[in-house]
This record gives sequence, C-alpha cells and structure tokens, in this order.
Amino acid sequence: MTTNVTAYAAPAAKAPLERTTVPRRAVGEHDVLIEIKYAGICHSDIHQARDGWGEGIFPMVPGHEIAGVVTETGSAVTRYAVGDRVGVGCFVDSCRECAYCEQGLQQYCEQGMIATYNGRDKAGDPTYGGYSSHIVVDEAYTLRIPDGLSLDVAAPLLCAGITLYSPLAHWKTGPGKKVAIVGLGGLGHMGVKIAHAMGAEVTVLSQSLRKQEDGLRLGADRYHATSDPATFEQLAGSFDLIVSTVSAPLDFDAYLSLLKTDGALVNVGAPEDQVKLNLFSLIGGRRTLAGSAIGGIPETQEMLDFCAEHGLGAEIELIRADQINEAYERVLDSDVRYRFVIDTATL
Amino acid sequence: MTTNVTAYAAPAAKAPLERTTVPRRAVGEHDVLIEIKYAGICHSDIHQARDGWGEGIFPMVPGHEIAGVVTETGSAVTRYAVGDRVGVGCFVDSCRECAYCEQGLQQYCEQGMIATYNGRDKAGDPTYGGYSSHIVVDEAYTLRIPDGLSLDVAAPLLCAGITLYSPLAHWKTGPGKKVAIVGLGGLGHMGVKIAHAMGAEVTVLSQSLRKQEDGLRLGADRYHATSDPATFEQLAGSFDLIVSTVSAPLDFDAYLSLLKTDGALVNVGAPEDQVKLNLFSLIGGRRTLAGSAIGGIPETQEMLDFCAEHGLGAEIELIRADQINEAYERVLDSDVRYRFVIDTATL
Repeated sequence: MTTNVTAYAAPAAKAPLERTTVPRRAVGEHDVLIEIKYAGICHSDIHQARDGWGEGIFPMVPGHEIAGVVTETGSAVTRYAVGDRVGVGCFVDSCRECAYCEQGLQQYCEQGMIATYNGRDKAGDPTYGGYSSHIVVDEAYTLRIPDGLSLDVAAPLLCAGITLYSPLAHWKTGPGKKVAIVGLGGLGHMGVKIAHAMGAEVTVLSQSLRKQEDGLRLGADRYHATSDPATFEQLAGSFDLIVSTVSAPLDFDAYLSLLKTDGALVNVGAPEDQVKLNLFSLIGGRRTLAGSAIGGIPETQEMLDFCAEHGLGAEIELIRADQINEAYERVLDSDVRYRFVIDTATL
Repeated sequence: MTTNVTAYAAPAAKAPLERTTVPRRAVGEHDVLIEIKYAGICHSDIHQARDGWGEGIFPMVPGHEIAGVVTETGSAVTRYAVGDRVGVGCFVDSCRECAYCEQGLQQYCEQGMIATYNGRDKAGDPTYGGYSSHIVVDEAYTLRIPDGLSLDVAAPLLCAGITLYSPLAHWKTGPGKKVAIVGLGGLGHMGVKIAHAMGAEVTVLSQSLRKQEDGLRLGADRYHATSDPATFEQLAGSFDLIVSTVSAPLDFDAYLSLLKTDGALVNVGAPEDQVKLNLFSLIGGRRTLAGSAIGGIPETQEMLDFCAEHGLGAEIELIRADQINEAYERVLDSDVRYRFVIDTATL
C-alpha cells in the first residue's frame, strides 16, 4: 500500500516546481524508509525538469543528492537501523545480475540503472526524487553517511562528490600526480577538495580568475584562466590527469596538449552535440580522452568514508523549498557557490 | 668523413623515386655500419616522399623498416659485432635525457625523436632512410633481430609490428580478452597475428569481407564487415580493446559502442582532419579513446623477441628497387598483401 508524501514537483515540462504529494511504496522486506533532511540541486535536475532530453515523466520530483535518517526498516534489512544517517544518490536499483552489477559498477548496469527520479522501478512505477519528505529505498542502494559529516554538506556528495571521486580514484590520483580540474562549479569544487585530499598537486582551469581566491582556499595549488592563451603554452605537457566538469565544448586539442605522455583527459560533463578533436593529439604522447559516470554503490560508500575522514563536505547555500525555482535560475546563471541544498523541513 | 652509398630517393616533392647516392657519416665510436638487406615500404613513406605534411627535406630517402647485417663497429660498441643481424625502425636518436627517454619511451621524447629519414641529426645533417645499401646508426638505437626471424619478413616489424605490439601490450591483451583490429592492411595484419599470439580472441573489422579468408588464416577468430549495420548491433559492448589502423574518419560513436565498460579504442592510424564524437559515448561505460605511436627501443626489442618466439613475420611481397614507384601506386590502391619489402641487393 502506498503512502502519499509531501514533495516539490514540476507538474509538466518547463512548468515551475510546486508543492504537491507523491506516492511512496510500502516498505518492503529489504527496504528502508528514509526521512529526507536535505536534497542537493544538481544541474541535471533542471535539465530534466525542463525535459531537456525529452521523454520526461511528469509530474517529476527531482533530486538525487539525498541525505536523511532511517525511520523504518523492512523485516529482512540487516545493514541499517532506525536512526541511522543515510544517503541516496543517482540510482535506486539495477539488474543486480550483469557482470557490472556483480562488480559493484551498478552505474554501468547492462540493463541500465534505475534512476532515483524520472525513471521507472521494476514494477513499472515512476520514481520520485529527493525534493520530498520521505523516500523508500532498498538497503542495497542506500549509503551510510559517517558521523563526521553533517547531513547538509553530505547531500551533494551523492552526485557531485562521487562524480569526481570516481575518476580521480580510477586514474590513480595521489602524491606526485599533477591533476587539473576544468571548471569550478558544483562538480569542480568537489574535484579540487578530493584531489587535494588524495595528495595530488591540483590546478584549476577556469575561464577567468573570478573564483581564484575560492579555488586556492578549497585546496588548489594553482589557478589559471583558460581565456588567456599563455595558459596553454605555460602548462603544455604538465598534467597526469585533467577532469573536465564543463558542458561547453572545449578546444580538445588544446586541452590534450596539457597532458603528459600517458595522461588522460576525463569528461564528467559533456555538451549534447558531438565534439571535435584531432587524433594526433592522442597519438603523440599515448594520451587518452575518456569519460566517467558517477560511481557504483561500493565506491560511493568509499567516497563518503574518505570525505568524512578528510572532513570534506560540499560548499553549500541552504535554501527553503519555496526558493527552488529561483535557485534554478541562479544555477543557470552560474550564480552559486557551490551547491544549493534544500532544507526539506521547509517543504 | 662521409661515404656516399647507393640509395633510392625522391629528388623533390612528388617526383618519382630514382637511383642516386647519399652521404653516410663516418662510423663513430658508438656506431654500427649496417649493410641493409631489406627495407619495408610504409604508407607514411609515400606520404612524406610526396611532401604530404610539408617541410619535407629533399632529396629524401624513405624507409624506416630496415633489416640488415652489421659490417663494422665503432671502437666503443659493446652490444653488436660484425655479422650480427640487426634492424632499425622509425628513429635513430633522441635527446636521451628527458623523463621519457630515461624510461625507454624515446618515441615520446620531449625534444622529439630524430626520425630515421626526413629528419635532422644532432649535427643538423639530414637523415636518410632504408631504401639504401648501408646506414650508420648508434648502437643504442639499433635492434637485434633474433635468429628465428628471416630478415625479409622481419623488416616490416620495425614499424608495422611495433605500432601494433605496443598498444596491444600496453592495454594488456591476453587470454580472456576480446580484441578487434580495424582494417586489415600492413598494420592490421600484424595486429591480428600479434593479438592472436598474445592469446586474445581476435576480431577483424573491415569494410568488406573481401580479405576474410586471409584474416582467419592470420589468426582472427571472427571477421565482420563494417559496411553492414548489423555488425554494430551484433557486436555492441563486446570488446575490451579496439585498435584502429585506418586513416579514414570512422563513425567513432558507433565504434565506441562496441566496447565493454572500461574498454579502449586506440588509434594508430588517423585522418589529418579533426574527427567528431559525442562525449556521452565515453561517459556511458567509462570508455577511452586513445592513441599510440610506434614503441620505444626496449619495447621494440621485446616485440622482435616475441615475434621470433611465436614465429611471426610480416606477410610480404618482395620487390626490386626499380619497382618502388609502382609499389607506391599499389599501396595507395590497397593492392598489397600485406607489405612491400625492397630487396636492397637490387638497388
């Protein structure tokens, strides 16, 4: 039997979000009921709420950066107890049978992961995200938020944090490595914090020097403006890894020239259209252009534990639910340092 | 004091090659004098002889797939003796001081490797390649051709062989791995042989099925025509590694869709113009698009030893020197199975 819970939803494509209720399934034997305390606003929330990719399911409750507390557990739940501090990220289920699910790489599930919102669960019902008072999630897709992390600054780690942690870990960021983060926004600022905590020498590559002071405070060793052509001469062949968080089409040949031999330029942001590059930018120096999508459940837990250990949360601006539509406009204007987080007590 | 030796040279850009003489430097203390027995014809010989990249140095003696015998050694030479069977590949020197040279990755030398022909040595003199009776090379840039390999079929290994061996080894080809080779030409046919010998399951992706019988004989397990759209449906998500040897612009989004999660599409051939792809083809499945250039001296020796151990030589068509211009036309028509090799006794 479903229960209706309070939520903020886009009633239709491009319509402003408004207060409403949505159904949550009964707590199954492997489920936990989570009272959501905070939900981050990801750029992709806006994109989907405005049906930027088409085929959006409306009404839509966005939100895949969820932090809250367990208030009920199913009969077979073993990992969590009432009162536990937990998080939910971009997906709430997957096939659980393919080679990728078996390796804990659920984000690359062969059947496609089941998105936390704007998806359909195995019963065919729409999923509703974190701009809501409660959510019911299988414990296997629920993360533990360590005590050292406040729930408000932990919420954005469930998407922005893991999106950067995963490529930084996969491409072996650590002491002695030179890492550049392209773009200092919601994703990029977590990249700077995490890469710095991993021990790398961190450079921010941003269009201008407008956020330089922030970048250095967050852990960057250097900060360069990509609008200055001298940046590309000065930094040629310097980096082991560049992680691009921007969705604007870059001059990829120029950015690839900043890599050392065997270096990688990994994209976690991307424009919707095709991009161009010369393959000789890859051949000379055995360089790689790669992509990376969020992270699997085990790695997301590893990321939360790492962030707690190093005292890393997101830099946030806490808002009330009635500020969501305004916050969307500010995200589109890049007017946020660095993540809006909804206090769901205000729903 | 230089010595003039017989060679075939392009006297000017786009002029047919003709018999001439070119100077070779006196044998220095670290040098070996090599009597060239065989020289392979690489597609890039044609490109450079016709000044396709501009700034060609003429007269130009192409040839960077050289096999021969040592006939004189400098006073400080320790690795080679008169009578030793040796090879020379795409470069004859490098800075020897940068991080890449120190790691034996001379092909990625920070100062740029010194090309076997159409380059300038440290004294500023032009380098002349393998379409010649003799060459003087520092022993440190000379390879040993193991006894098990005939010199004629060994010559093409010095470029075509190492160009495929290096990415196959770097991306960990071996038993249990599924590898595709795009294009079955001079490079591709060595890729099939080497990947098969490394224990991988090998698929050829070729425009048509015209060379299917050859491909299977050379070691491929499967052979698919890329002109058939069903190929891309059937093979979706199948490969750990795809090595593209073609210089035509591929539909990269389609080829990337053939990779498993964490798979790599490595280009050793490339069109001169920019190519296009959608970064979501990389992000979904953490795939990489990469490039690879020949190999360093230690890896080239490792490749020759591997090929000798597994009895792998190139498939060649032996020609006389006076057939070089005709052979160039046939290479441009893809009318060679799979490498022309010049018998330098006919110079």
